[in-house]
Amino acid sequence: MSTERVFNFSAGPSVLPLSVLEKAGSEITNYRGSGMSVMEMSHRSKVYIEIFEETKADLKRVMSIPDTHEVLFVPGGATMQFSAVPMNLIGKTGKADYAVTGNFSGLAMKEAKKYGEINIACSSEDKNHTYIPAQGDLKLSADASYFHYCSNNTIYGTEWKYVPQTGDVPLVCDMSSNIMSVPVDVSKYGVIYAGVQKNMAPAGVAVVIIDKALVGNEHPLTPKLLSYKVMLDSDSMHNTPPCYTIYMLGLVLKWLDEQGGIEGMEKIKAGKAKLLYDMLDDSKMFDGCADKAARSDMNVTFRTTSEELDAQFIKEATKAGFVNLKGHRNVGGMRASIYNAMPTEGVQKLADFMRGFEARNK
Amino acid sequence: MSTERVFNFSAGPSVLPLSVLEKAGSEITNYRGSGMSVMEMSHRSKVYIEIFEETKADLKRVMSIPDTHEVLFVPGGATMQFSAVPMNLIGKTGKADYAVTGNFSGLAMKEAKKYGEINIACSSEDKNHTYIPAQGDLKLSADASYFHYCSNNTIYGTEWKYVPQTGDVPLVCDMSSNIMSVPVDVSKYGVIYAGVQKNMAPAGVAVVIIDKALVGNEHPLTPKLLSYKVMLDSDSMHNTPPCYTIYMLGLVLKWLDEQGGIEGMEKIKAGKAKLLYDMLDDSKMFDGCADKAARSDMNVTFRTTSEELDAQFIKEATKAGFVNLKGHRNVGGMRASIYNAMPTEGVQKLADFMRGFEARNK
Repeated sequence: MSTERVFNFSAGPSVLPLSVLEKAGSEITNYRGSGMSVMEMSHRSKVYIEIFEETKADLKRVMSIPDTHEVLFVPGGATMQFSAVPMNLIGKTGKADYAVTGNFSGLAMKEAKKYGEINIACSSEDKNHTYIPAQGDLKLSADASYFHYCSNNTIYGTEWKYVPQTGDVPLVCDMSSNIMSVPVDVSKYGVIYAGVQKNMAPAGVAVVIIDKALVGNEHPLTPKLLSYKVMLDSDSMHNTPPCYTIYMLGLVLKWLDEQGGIEGMEKIKAGKAKLLYDMLDDSKMFDGCADKAARSDMNVTFRTTSEELDAQFIKEATKAGFVNLKGHRNVGGMRASIYNAMPTEGVQKLADFMRGFEARNK
Repeated sequence: MSTERVFNFSAGPSVLPLSVLEKAGSEITNYRGSGMSVMEMSHRSKVYIEIFEETKADLKRVMSIPDTHEVLFVPGGATMQFSAVPMNLIGKTGKADYAVTGNFSGLAMKEAKKYGEINIACSSEDKNHTYIPAQGDLKLSADASYFHYCSNNTIYGTEWKYVPQTGDVPLVCDMSSNIMSVPVDVSKYGVIYAGVQKNMAPAGVAVVIIDKALVGNEHPLTPKLLSYKVMLDSDSMHNTPPCYTIYMLGLVLKWLDEQGGIEGMEKIKAGKAKLLYDMLDDSKMFDGCADKAARSDMNVTFRTTSEELDAQFIKEATKAGFVNLKGHRNVGGMRASIYNAMPTEGVQKLADFMRGFEARNK
C-alpha cells in the first residue's frame, strides 16, 4: 500500500485537484459548523441551497454566461443528453444536423434518430476520426432544428479549433471533455452540455447551459426529468439533485478561480499540451495519432513503433506512477488525458519519462 | 461554528452512519493504496470494478435477491423511475394499476398516464393519505401490465404493512424510504426501485431490482439510459455511473452487516419507532398524524395542539440540536425521519426532549 498519489491520466472520471479533495475530506463529517455532512443535507435546507446557488453563480461568472441562458444540473451525464436534446429540440422541424467526429458524437447521432430525421453534416470516420472537417465541408440543412457537435473527442484526441457557423440554426455542443479549458462565447450556443467527470467534478451529474428561448417544445413522451422546461421551472430541483456532486463542482470552481479562471487555465493547459506534443514531434519512437491541426489539448493520443513496445511502455509507466495511459481500443497505443486538474508537474514528468524510455529502448 | 454533530431528522437526503463518513474521509485522497480518490477512478479500471461488483454482491446478499433478479444502478433517483417503469413495462397490455397513497405515488401515477391507460387501484386522498387501504379495497385489473405502489409514504408517515396480492400481475414498488429496514421477499416483485438518499447512500443514484424476465419490451422512444435492457446488458455501465455514490452505498452495506443485516436493522428500527410512538400515545400535547394501523417506522409525523406551539417546538428543538423536524406543508406539524442511520440515542433524546417540552408548556 502506497501513501503516494499517482499521476492519473484517466480519460474520465479523472484527476481532481488535491486541495479540493483535502477540503472535502476536512468537512466530510461536519460542513462548516452545520453539524452534518453535505451528503446528509436536505436539498431544501437553507445551508444546502446556499451551496447550490453559489455553485451556480460561480459557474455563470467563470463561464461568462449571459442572462439569456440558464444553468441546469441534470442526471445521467452527457449520455442522457443524447436523448434529451432531440426530445426537447427536434420538434421544431423534425430534423437536425449532426457532425460525427468521434465515438460520442456518433452515439448522440444514433440516439437522435429515434426522435427525428438526422442529416450527417460531416463525418471523419473515413480516416478513423483523426481530423476535424473544415467549415466549408459541413453539409448544413437550412431547416434543421439544431446543429449538434462534440467539441473535443476524448477517444481520438481531436478538438474543434473553430465554432461552426450555422446561420439561424441553433448550435448544440457536447463539451464534456474540454469545458472550462478555453473561453467560450456562450451566446453563440443554443445548448452546451457536459458530463462533469472530466474537467469539473466526480461523475454523477451533467451541466446543461441553455438558451431559455429554446425551452418548452419537448416531445409529449419526454420523461419529466429530461424536460428542460421542468428543470428550468424548478431550478434543477424537481426532485433531489445529486447534491454532493454539485458541492464538489463548487469546490472545483473555487480552485479554478485560484488558477486565474478559464483564461488562466487556457494558458496552463496550452503549456501542458505543448510539453507532450513537442516531445512527440521530436521523438523517433513516439508519434501522435491525430492530425496536427486537430490535436486536442485535453487528450493526447500517441503510439510507439509497435504494439509490443506500446504494452511495455504502459507497463513501465504504470510502475513509475503514471497510470491509466492505455489508449482506447478504437485507436490503440496510448492516451494521456491532461484535464485542468492534472498538474503541469505530472505532464513534465511524463514527457521526461517518455524521453528516458526512448533512450533506453533505441 | 459548532464542532458537534446534530441529530438530523431530514426526510432525505438524510443522516448517514458517522463511521461511514469517517471511513470515506480517511481515504478521500488515496483509496487503499491506489494513489487516487474513488472520485478520480476510471469506471473501467480494475480497482473501481472491484468496488462496484462488491457493492452489487453485498446488496444481493443483504437483500437475499434471487438469481431471477438483477440489480441496476440508474441515474435520476426514484423520480426517473416514474417514467422508466411505464416506458419499459406498460407496453405489454397498454394498461397499469396504481395505488395512490401519498405524494410520490401520485406523481408516479400522473407520469405513467403519458405512456398508457392508468387505473387507480386505490386512493387514500379522501383522508389526506393518513391510512393505507386494505387488500380487499384494491380495485385490480386482470389485464394490467403491472401494479405500482409506494411501500412507505415519506410525507404522510404511513407504511404498507402487507404486500398486495395481485395474482399474475407483476408488482412494482417504490421502496425509496423504507428499503433495507425490513426483510422483503424480492421474488414477489417484478421491480423494486429506490432512490438511495434515505436509507442507502447520499443522493445521486437509484437502485432498481428487476425480474430479468420483464426486460426487453420498452417503448421505442425510451431514452437509452432509461432502458432496463440497455442497463442490464451493460451491467449498469452503458455510460459512466455515479461511481462515488455507489462506493458510499458499499460502505453503508458494510455498516449494515455490523448491525446484523436487515434482520438486525428491523429490530433496531422497531425499537426506535416505539420510543416515539409510545411518547405520542402517552402525550396530551403531541399527537400522531397517521392512523395507528398505518404508522411508518421510518417517518413519524406528529403535531401539537396548535400551529403556534408546533413552530415553538421546532425552534426549540433546532436550538437543542434536533434538526429538520418541520413537517411537509401537505401535512403540517412535525416529522421525525428515523432512517437506518439515525442512532437509537438520537430518537431517545428526541423523545426525552418532547417530554420536557410538554412539561414546560402545560
